[in-house]
Amino acid sequence: MQDSYYAVIFTSKRTDGDKGYHKMGEQMETLAKQQPGYIGIESAKENIGITVSYWESLDAIKNWKENSAHLFAQEKGKMDWYSWYKVRICKVEREYEFGNTYLL
Amino acid sequence: MQDSYYAVIFTSKRTDGDKGYHKMGEQMETLAKQQPGYIGIESAKENIGITVSYWESLDAIKNWKENSAHLFAQEKGKMDWYSWYKVRICKVEREYEFGNTYLL
Repeated sequence: MQDSYYAVIFTSKRTDGDKGYHKMGEQMETLAKQQPGYIGIESAKENIGITVSYWESLDAIKNWKENSAHLFAQEKGKMDWYSWYKVRICKVEREYEFGNTYLL
Repeated sequence: MQDSYYAVIFTSKRTDGDKGYHKMGEQMETLAKQQPGYIGIESAKENIGITVSYWESLDAIKNWKENSAHLFAQEKGKMDWYSWYKVRICKVEREYEFGNTYLL
């Protein structure tokens, strides 16, 4: 693991119905993994969805945000899939781990 | 919202069975909300659990980590509830939001 890296915390509240959400979600995850500076992703959905993606730099986050296919998905997200979301861009300052590594 | 704040990303993989986990989880959430510097918490569980808590300072995070009831829960967590977890302490550098505020 490099010395310093970043986390994007995406917390969301969905609208009802799928409306192409899951298919697009899978496409975006596949595409994110191909981006320069991508480290990993963790995701869980219950009442709210939380997806945290990890990146080597703020530039890598910016490039992914401005990726054209991702921009299209972001617009669809605002129109169709989310009633609310919040994005927090964070610098990981410290970390520790317990137990066997869970492979992301 | 204050100018700068911190996020603790707790990602975990549970062992099988409850073994007092949910009761303790509720107690810890109630207790966390009473701590100085506490801002909010977001949580979702699926294959993995992701809980993100938000704090006004690194000191507030340290105090909560060293709270005696919380220390006890942390030990129980390692013995009984988690096969793996990872904690990342992060500085929130930027944030943006879409739609109606979802009350944490």
